Amino acid sequence: MFAKETYMQRRALLKKNIGSGVLLFLGNDDMGLNYEDNAFRYRQDSSFLYFFGISQAGLAAIIDIDENKEIVFGDEMSIDFIVWAGKLPTLQEKTAEVGITDTRPYLQVADYLNKAQAKGQQVHYLPPYRPEHKLKLMDWLGIAPSAQEGSVPFIRAIIKQRNIKNSEEITEIEKACNVTADMHIAAIKCLRPGMHEYDVAAEIEHVAALNNCELSFSTIATIHGETLHNHYHGHLVKSGDLFLIDAGAEVESGYCGDMSSTFPADKKFSQKQKDVYVIQNAMHLESVKALRPGIPYMDVYDLSAKVMVEGMKDLGLMKGNTDDAVREGAHALFYPHGLGHMMGLDVHDMENLGEVWVGYDGQPKSTQFGRKSQRLAIPLQPGFVHTVEPGIYFIPELIDRWRKEKKFTDFINYDKVEEYRHFGGIRNEEDYLITEDGARRLGKKIPLTPDEVEAIRS
Amino acid sequence: MFAKETYMQRRALLKKNIGSGVLLFLGNDDMGLNYEDNAFRYRQDSSFLYFFGISQAGLAAIIDIDENKEIVFGDEMSIDFIVWAGKLPTLQEKTAEVGITDTRPYLQVADYLNKAQAKGQQVHYLPPYRPEHKLKLMDWLGIAPSAQEGSVPFIRAIIKQRNIKNSEEITEIEKACNVTADMHIAAIKCLRPGMHEYDVAAEIEHVAALNNCELSFSTIATIHGETLHNHYHGHLVKSGDLFLIDAGAEVESGYCGDMSSTFPADKKFSQKQKDVYVIQNAMHLESVKALRPGIPYMDVYDLSAKVMVEGMKDLGLMKGNTDDAVREGAHALFYPHGLGHMMGLDVHDMENLGEVWVGYDGQPKSTQFGRKSQRLAIPLQPGFVHTVEPGIYFIPELIDRWRKEKKFTDFINYDKVEEYRHFGGIRNEEDYLITEDGARRLGKKIPLTPDEVEAIRS
Repeated sequence: MFAKETYMQRRALLKKNIGSGVLLFLGNDDMGLNYEDNAFRYRQDSSFLYFFGISQAGLAAIIDIDENKEIVFGDEMSIDFIVWAGKLPTLQEKTAEVGITDTRPYLQVADYLNKAQAKGQQVHYLPPYRPEHKLKLMDWLGIAPSAQEGSVPFIRAIIKQRNIKNSEEITEIEKACNVTADMHIAAIKCLRPGMHEYDVAAEIEHVAALNNCELSFSTIATIHGETLHNHYHGHLVKSGDLFLIDAGAEVESGYCGDMSSTFPADKKFSQKQKDVYVIQNAMHLESVKALRPGIPYMDVYDLSAKVMVEGMKDLGLMKGNTDDAVREGAHALFYPHGLGHMMGLDVHDMENLGEVWVGYDGQPKSTQFGRKSQRLAIPLQPGFVHTVEPGIYFIPELIDRWRKEKKFTDFINYDKVEEYRHFGGIRNEEDYLITEDGARRLGKKIPLTPDEVEAIRS
Repeated sequence: MFAKETYMQRRALLKKNIGSGVLLFLGNDDMGLNYEDNAFRYRQDSSFLYFFGISQAGLAAIIDIDENKEIVFGDEMSIDFIVWAGKLPTLQEKTAEVGITDTRPYLQVADYLNKAQAKGQQVHYLPPYRPEHKLKLMDWLGIAPSAQEGSVPFIRAIIKQRNIKNSEEITEIEKACNVTADMHIAAIKCLRPGMHEYDVAAEIEHVAALNNCELSFSTIATIHGETLHNHYHGHLVKSGDLFLIDAGAEVESGYCGDMSSTFPADKKFSQKQKDVYVIQNAMHLESVKALRPGIPYMDVYDLSAKVMVEGMKDLGLMKGNTDDAVREGAHALFYPHGLGHMMGLDVHDMENLGEVWVGYDGQPKSTQFGRKSQRLAIPLQPGFVHTVEPGIYFIPELIDRWRKEKKFTDFINYDKVEEYRHFGGIRNEEDYLITEDGARRLGKKIPLTPDEVEAIRS
């Protein structure tokens, strides 16, 4: 938790930027896996954390701009609760630490909202991303789940604040990034042919746990890197495999790290692996070089795609004019995702508020395959924290489909592509802070160039 | 996944036992931590797993007894899905493995249910335990969340089947118990003063992960064993502390293990620790000795409480008539929870179907503090799998409250209790299968007697 003043300033700025109305913040509840009391690990809503700092189930908060009130709704502990969960600071004690003195029983939320609506005040709420949110908005505001769209002024005001990380936040993110780097380094060192993927996942998660961290998202640890979000860990690792990890730590304050690495199951890459790895590495290094305030991140995406096409042309996998190939989307056969995303209290920061607002400032997104997965398009600003994570993949189902559809035959040499059918995939990922005159990597360095990877593998 | 015939037989028996109507099974969906696409680890609903065997989000199933139809509703993969999540067996292929050929698009569930209702068929559904279930029952059946009570005949028929574990299930539970025992043994061996609680939790969870297991519930690993469900792991472990672990593994099929152990941070117990440990150990051993078909588990709970009171009287902490003390509930100051619970696909098996049905066969539960937390009261039957987990705790807030209320002053020597104010808590827990003529421990042995604990600690 940060200093009390941080939360007070954040709320003051939010009130100023929105101007009037009632702002409703839904805290997250516990969520049962297979029955109500067997809960998943608890995770507070990130905007609730940002403005109220309290990570506890069963809370809601209201900022009534017109009445100048800041209220946290929740119930104090019963003796039964103390027996089962221990004596904890009271809600009053916790809210005092974030500069709030007005706490009220949880059951009074609906009444407060109804009175505000009766007085003609506008109630702003955020888009629900959990079914529990939908039930509450229905109960409290009488809005059917299908009509719960969220308030655009509220969304935009929050994004404006959360997009720019201050030094307190950078410190937390860098803690998460340091643990994240350690998770990757331990995994890269431990891999041996004959292990299962879950042995590597276990190593990654052990490092997080030893640092008292949660995972910021479900670990990817796989010999099938061509499957972008592969959470299956049952395969046996064989000599000749490429291994891809995408994993990150979340520190106690809720801030996240997110890195990826790709390395051979053997001590060295095969020549074929290195040929493609070198291209992916160039995409990465060229993208990082381009980071600076003012450059639209979509331009950096285009740059990374062009670097890939050039490299793939050298290998005989692509052909034709590079700019045309990227504009038309031919590169997406091998690079079907974006270059990166905002990172902060969420690993895809504020994704629940809508990518079109976070990454596009309300401008329409492309519908082109590949490009549509670019989550961040707007000009970079000092204080942005985002990932850089280009990738190259050979996805058999996609190759077969495009070939059958005769898609981009001017740019893709499908016969040559067949030689790489079982290659797998490569992604490397680092986290960057945009500074006044460029960018700074957050967290310890993980191996990135082919030489760095082979050095740590031997 | 078991043989196709297992699932077919389970469904056939269910249909026979219920007789008529439409049975609706809600599969669990993915659930976002902090935005929709950042999901917790996936866990299918256990009754869905039991009757349909498929662990996948986005499914529902219907058994139409009157029309003799068994249908799984769900959608096949799109190319976008394959790119992001890999090529997986189709829904058709998966349902074929559990003996179902009728699969339909997910969107058709509501229509099927509405037509059944229009025909006058009764639609049976289970009590919702996730908000997503409540939204679906509201959408599909038009029942407000507050009125969604679940069908008692459906609940009772499922309990009747799931209560009795067959040999296939025992094999899976025993796998989970063996991993669970390894988790405890590794943790007991690793603890040293100067570690944090999270270092021990990390060790426990590492063993689970190396066995490709999930956790069956959130790990308890604490120097504050007196807090029954303490999931905070931030304390530093000091010489003189007692350390309590309650943790279990869940194997890929969904079956669970659940064990507890308590041990000193030092190599040996202090005399005071051993004095109380010996009593808790006697509660445990006497309870296990009593396990056999036909004995009500509430009687075994009473036995464990009486063994405790006798021991506490020897230490001068309690006084008076033992039977009276237990009948009136005085023992619950030190033993505020139950002796154990059913275990299977859920660590508290079928808790979502209602404890009053699972553990009490519909008979009313006691409201007495302590006794009301006994989850299983009915006579044991061959095939039951349940835990044995007596405990002794010194909970300062509870002691203060009872003393102030002058509660049970005929049975409790509060002055003597003060000497143990900061003692902490002790719980040990094993998992048992009721056999034809007694009971069998499931999984490897973990240290239980004081000698066994001190042997592994040195």
